[in-house]
Amino acid sequence: MSAPLHDPEAPREPVRLKLAALRAEPLPATFKGLPAIAEGVFLQDLDRLKLSLLDGDLPLPAAVLKESALTHNARWMRAFTGRAGVSLAPHGKTTMAPQLFQRQFDEGAWGMTAATAVHVRTYRRFGVPRVILANQLVGKADLELVFRELAADPSFDFFVLVDSAAGLDLLRTAAIAHGLTRPVQVLLEVGTPGGRTGVRSVEEGAALAALIQAASPAIALRGVEAFEGVYSGADTARVELGALTMIETVAELTRRGCADGWFAPGEVLLSAGGSAFFDMAAKTLAAVEAGGTGHALRVVLRSGCYLSHDSLQYERMQDRMRQRAGALWGEGPGLRNAIEVWAYVQSVPEPGRAICTAGRRDLSYDACLPQPLWWYRQGTHDAPQAAPGSWTVSKLNDQHAFVDAVAAADAGEGALPLRVGDLIAFGVGHPCTTFDKWPLLYTVDDVYRVTGGVRTFF
Amino acid sequence: MSAPLHDPEAPREPVRLKLAALRAEPLPATFKGLPAIAEGVFLQDLDRLKLSLLDGDLPLPAAVLKESALTHNARWMRAFTGRAGVSLAPHGKTTMAPQLFQRQFDEGAWGMTAATAVHVRTYRRFGVPRVILANQLVGKADLELVFRELAADPSFDFFVLVDSAAGLDLLRTAAIAHGLTRPVQVLLEVGTPGGRTGVRSVEEGAALAALIQAASPAIALRGVEAFEGVYSGADTARVELGALTMIETVAELTRRGCADGWFAPGEVLLSAGGSAFFDMAAKTLAAVEAGGTGHALRVVLRSGCYLSHDSLQYERMQDRMRQRAGALWGEGPGLRNAIEVWAYVQSVPEPGRAICTAGRRDLSYDACLPQPLWWYRQGTHDAPQAAPGSWTVSKLNDQHAFVDAVAAADAGEGALPLRVGDLIAFGVGHPCTTFDKWPLLYTVDDVYRVTGGVRTFF
Repeated sequence: MSAPLHDPEAPREPVRLKLAALRAEPLPATFKGLPAIAEGVFLQDLDRLKLSLLDGDLPLPAAVLKESALTHNARWMRAFTGRAGVSLAPHGKTTMAPQLFQRQFDEGAWGMTAATAVHVRTYRRFGVPRVILANQLVGKADLELVFRELAADPSFDFFVLVDSAAGLDLLRTAAIAHGLTRPVQVLLEVGTPGGRTGVRSVEEGAALAALIQAASPAIALRGVEAFEGVYSGADTARVELGALTMIETVAELTRRGCADGWFAPGEVLLSAGGSAFFDMAAKTLAAVEAGGTGHALRVVLRSGCYLSHDSLQYERMQDRMRQRAGALWGEGPGLRNAIEVWAYVQSVPEPGRAICTAGRRDLSYDACLPQPLWWYRQGTHDAPQAAPGSWTVSKLNDQHAFVDAVAAADAGEGALPLRVGDLIAFGVGHPCTTFDKWPLLYTVDDVYRVTGGVRTFF
Repeated sequence: MSAPLHDPEAPREPVRLKLAALRAEPLPATFKGLPAIAEGVFLQDLDRLKLSLLDGDLPLPAAVLKESALTHNARWMRAFTGRAGVSLAPHGKTTMAPQLFQRQFDEGAWGMTAATAVHVRTYRRFGVPRVILANQLVGKADLELVFRELAADPSFDFFVLVDSAAGLDLLRTAAIAHGLTRPVQVLLEVGTPGGRTGVRSVEEGAALAALIQAASPAIALRGVEAFEGVYSGADTARVELGALTMIETVAELTRRGCADGWFAPGEVLLSAGGSAFFDMAAKTLAAVEAGGTGHALRVVLRSGCYLSHDSLQYERMQDRMRQRAGALWGEGPGLRNAIEVWAYVQSVPEPGRAICTAGRRDLSYDACLPQPLWWYRQGTHDAPQAAPGSWTVSKLNDQHAFVDAVAAADAGEGALPLRVGDLIAFGVGHPCTTFDKWPLLYTVDDVYRVTGGVRTFF
């Protein structure tokens, strides 16, 4: 058994995912947002229907991705990682959309990140060649899903986390029992006290690294990983210090590991960087040196949300990232929101309140409630009108959003001009929990004509 | 054009939904919870695989429905509605599972309730013969989905809500434009001040009823409706008074409508009763009399959650329902929880904290956070062990649950005996937002052997 070697200088084959069957799949009539005319139509033929959201061609709610923003964001991240000298394995759990994975590979992604063994299976079905499973792998059936893929394709490059002796023992025992003919490549997971998974200190990490080494040849230690995004909240200083400390622990363990010979042959991976702190991860980890030990180092960021971005949570965080990043950020403001959910105004039962046809089944509500972005009245407006900042979503039910005009009582009925039948667009904070509510999202041009559809697999 | 007549004395044909194609559908390898051995297996053959959750045959997380509780709950509700002398059109939006709809019809459901036009399309695809769309219908493409069904099958019995002149006008104009050859049957929607949709008072209702009458023959007023579940919260007196007032407004408008001849020929429907107050709706509405006007009255409850019930929100509400209902409740405690989500303990990074492999993508978190119900260690336990009440879910991430032992600091490590690889079951508060996270839920017997699968269409 020997670990596969990765030559960072080797020319890269373009990754072409297996999307043909997906594109040729007839769209089921049970999908929300799908109009009668699109039932049974192949995904790849959606654009031929010339559907217009603003003309009312779609039953609402419907979720859309703006083509121009997707393209901008994919290119922006390629440029950013290029400047930073790091690689990207976007977290596919955000979208679970192989068509979007292809866009990410087209813009230079080095691999994809997964959260579960079932994600790994889905990725492999569509031909993703390299996966970081950013969790410890436990459970007979989960292990089997992953080991089957490892056995079936010697070129499948797979990494999984280990954060404890218990987890390591389960993995090693299962790998031997399955008769795997190559080592399972693992990354040592760094956590933080009071946080989620991962070792709590450099010392715990060093102790675990010794155990992983002893699990050779079934297991190969290939690097160090953290998810610093466990830090969040309004206390910026505390949050940033916590995230940075985790990233620095990755750096420290990598340096120690190189010096002390912990790592299996080949590149050593340093991986961190969710969607809120990838600037810090890039800066800190790209500065690590292997110290003449012969190991090549590869920094792998794992942001999942950059492609769609959002209007609220990550948009706010981006302001701070831009400040921190300085010249590394490049020109311009950065990522743009690509994801919106459109609904109808179903009822205006009282002045200052509109009840709209999208709810908890359609919109994120974990980081914050959604926010009205646009409204549009057919026959009156030429283009969507910006929703005033005084409009808020005060409540979500499963299938309804309550849009209130904050100053309605003072301003009279004019504060909320919405009428039954008007269209309204919502922006979200946290794309992950909006994507997972839609088996089909539309791609649209800047005037909301449907250019295609993106299927998700949650 | 004439409204279809419903003779409550007529013998009822058993409803047989079109489930054959669904049952003969191969299960896609992208479904979470699906083990390798079940990929491509027909849904109807799942039981033949003899899968055992406790033996680790399923990748986790997986969602299960306990057969014994489903059966109990379906029969319990049949008995309850029988005692109360009311009909049931369960809200299908809870489960969006045609196989469960069939169980509900088998136990005497009169129809199904839907939340959106897309739901109506899905119901019709599976042959649901009678639907209440419990919302006002707006939007060109949504109207088209419904009108197509009305045009295609003269026996399709469909009701939709109207809550305003604006909504009525949209519906009437569209019905005429589509050349429908029978009237659209509408229910006048009752709301509450500060609430969601619906008229705010008897007076508003009477004024709208006059407009609906004037929209004949395109529109036929067939009854009055409310969703009293807009009232919720800890202030029981306020909540119950609010809900009861809405239900009484339905009663009052029905009496007035009968007396003043608002309603189209045929049965008049009085509909209310979500899952928290169906006892109050049944008692109050079943007591309404048509006053010798020749109208037969039918009370239709619409609970969606009774079939699965839950462990937290509706379980707490049930205590109060039982108190209120008195003899109408019948013997025994009532509904039983049928829905659980199982996960693995992935990491025990600190004493008193276990990180488990289920998160916001798998579990409800809108009414409350989930609660550990059971845990199980293979090779040690004969059966799932009850989780102590001191274990709580302190946080959910997208793919993780943080299980903390409340008294861990005092009690030492023994407070949370969980180890990496243990199984853990979570109960939820609010089944609607758990069902919609699972394209496939397993039915299981009382020792968690898989007896089948239930597909959902969200």
